[in-house]
Amino acid sequence: MTVLLVTPGRDSAGLAAAIRRQDPSIDVRIWPETGPAAAIRFAVLWQQPPGLLRQLKGLAAVSSLGAGAEHVLADPDLPPGMRVGRLAGQRLAADMAAYLLAQVLGHWRRLARFRQAQAREEWSPWAPADPPRIGLLGTGNMAGAALRAFQALDVPVRAFNRSGRPLDGIRVESGRSGLFALAEWSDYLICLLPLTDQTRGILNADLFKRMRAGAVLVNVGRGAHLVEADLLAGLDHGRPGAAILDVFAQEPLPDGHPFWHHPAIQITPHCASVTGDEEAAGLIIESWRRVAAGQPPLDAVDRSLGY
Amino acid sequence: MTVLLVTPGRDSAGLAAAIRRQDPSIDVRIWPETGPAAAIRFAVLWQQPPGLLRQLKGLAAVSSLGAGAEHVLADPDLPPGMRVGRLAGQRLAADMAAYLLAQVLGHWRRLARFRQAQAREEWSPWAPADPPRIGLLGTGNMAGAALRAFQALDVPVRAFNRSGRPLDGIRVESGRSGLFALAEWSDYLICLLPLTDQTRGILNADLFKRMRAGAVLVNVGRGAHLVEADLLAGLDHGRPGAAILDVFAQEPLPDGHPFWHHPAIQITPHCASVTGDEEAAGLIIESWRRVAAGQPPLDAVDRSLGY
Repeated sequence: MTVLLVTPGRDSAGLAAAIRRQDPSIDVRIWPETGPAAAIRFAVLWQQPPGLLRQLKGLAAVSSLGAGAEHVLADPDLPPGMRVGRLAGQRLAADMAAYLLAQVLGHWRRLARFRQAQAREEWSPWAPADPPRIGLLGTGNMAGAALRAFQALDVPVRAFNRSGRPLDGIRVESGRSGLFALAEWSDYLICLLPLTDQTRGILNADLFKRMRAGAVLVNVGRGAHLVEADLLAGLDHGRPGAAILDVFAQEPLPDGHPFWHHPAIQITPHCASVTGDEEAAGLIIESWRRVAAGQPPLDAVDRSLGY
Repeated sequence: MTVLLVTPGRDSAGLAAAIRRQDPSIDVRIWPETGPAAAIRFAVLWQQPPGLLRQLKGLAAVSSLGAGAEHVLADPDLPPGMRVGRLAGQRLAADMAAYLLAQVLGHWRRLARFRQAQAREEWSPWAPADPPRIGLLGTGNMAGAALRAFQALDVPVRAFNRSGRPLDGIRVESGRSGLFALAEWSDYLICLLPLTDQTRGILNADLFKRMRAGAVLVNVGRGAHLVEADLLAGLDHGRPGAAILDVFAQEPLPDGHPFWHHPAIQITPHCASVTGDEEAAGLIIESWRRVAAGQPPLDAVDRSLGY
C-alpha cells in the first residue's frame, strides 16, 4: 500500500523524506517513479498530469498538496465518488496571516515612503489617525488566522463568505449585496476565497466600482479570482488605489506583463504562504491513516460546493 | 481650577479642543497662556521649560503627555511628593504593536527585496522555513500589546523586565544574565523599556556580542537606551545584522549622522506610535478627575523606580 506524491515541476524529495522520517512504515513514492499502479491507495496532487488518475485503479482517496483543491476537482479523470482532501495546516495559516499583516500594516504605515525619506535625510514624522478597516473575502483556515491577528491589534475586521455564517463574533456578509457592502466599508479588501465557479473573476469592475477611493486590493487567493484588465482600469480611477498581488492568471508572471512596472501594484511571486515539508508530512500521514481506516481524508472537500 | 497643557514645539490646539468637547466643564489652557498660575491644579507635560514647575504653586499632580515620564522625573523643579502620571492608552499601545508587526514581519518576509525583484521583472519565490523568535525588552502596556499580537500569529515570544514577573504565560527573563539569555535567543530583539538610570545605554556592545549573527535590533524605546557608536561597531560584525530605529539620542536625527545612509539601518522619525488627540483627551480628563478626587493620576509612576 503506497502513498504517491504527484508534483511535477516541484521537487518533493524533502517531503518524501519527511514522511518516511515521521512514519517509516509508509511506502511513499514520487511520480513518475510510481511502482505498481494497483498498490497506490492515496495520492497527493499538485498540477497532476492529465490522464494519470485514470491509471491509478487502486486509489481510495486523494488530497491536494495545498489549501486549494480546484486543480484536483477540475481533473476530468477524477472518479465521481472519490474523496478529496486538502492540506490546511496551522503553520500554513499562520504564515499567510503574517504575510498579510506585513503587507497591509506596512502599506498602512507607509514604510516604503519612510525608506525613501531616509535616503533623502528627511525627518518627517507621520502616523495615521485611525486603524485601517480590514475586509476579508473568505473565512476558512487562513482567513480565520488573519482575522484573529488583526483583531489582536484592535483593528476593525469584517468578512464575506458563501453562507453568511458568523465567525468569532465577526460580522460576516454574504450574497452579492453583502459583497458590495464589504467593498464599500473596507480600506483593505483581501481575497482568500477558494476558487470555484462562483468565485472565478469575483474581483472585477463591478466590485472595484464599490470600493472606497484609495482603498487597497490584496489578492492571495488564486490568480483566476481577478480580472486583470479590470484591475488596470480600476487603478486608473483610484478604485482600488493600489493592489498587492501574490497570485496571477499566469505564473510566473510573463515578461512584459503590465503589472510588473505599474506604480500602484506590489508583486510577490506566489509565496505568501508555502506548505513546509514537516507540517505537510504530518498532515499527509494523518490523512492517509484516516483513509486507510475507511474515513474521509483531512479537510475533505464538498465536491458539490467545489471547496 | 485649570488643566494646563505644556507642550512647547508641539501644537496642542487640537488636544485642548478635544478636551473641551469631551468635558466642557474643564478649564483647559495651553502654555504660555496660563492665566493665573495659582488656579492650575493639573499639568500635562511634554518637554516643559526649566523652572516652570516652580511657578505652579497650586499643582496637585502632573502627567506626562506620553507613555514615558523620564522628562518629567528629570525636572529638578518637580516637588518631591508630587504624583506623576502617564498616558498609556489602548490605541497608543495597539499602534505601537502594529508598527512593530509591520517592521518585523516585513523584514522577516523580505518585502523590500521582493520590491527590488519586481523592478527587475524577476520571479523568485521565497518563504522562511520557521517563524522568527521575538524578544521584547519591556512588558508594559505597549510591549504587552505587541506580545499578544505576535502570539496570535503563533510566533514564539519571550520578554525581559526588571522583576521577572511573568506575563500571560510568556517566559520573562530578568537580571543581567536574563538579558543576555534573551539576546542569545532572539531573532528580533525589541526595546520598549522605560528610560531609567538602569536602562540608559542598555543597548550596548556587551549586549550586541550576545546576539545571534544576523539578528535584528529594534529600538522604539528612547534614543538614550542605545549607545549609537556600539551599534555601528556591532553592525560591522553582523551582531546585530540590522537595526530598525524610531528613536535617537538627538531628534531630529542630525544631518550627516552615519545612521542616515547605513545600509543595515532603517529609520522612522519617532512616529512608531503617536498619542491621538481624542484618546489623549479622554485619558487626561479621567486622570484629572482622579486627581480632583484626591487620588493618583492614571498610570502613576513609581518615582523610586523611575517609571
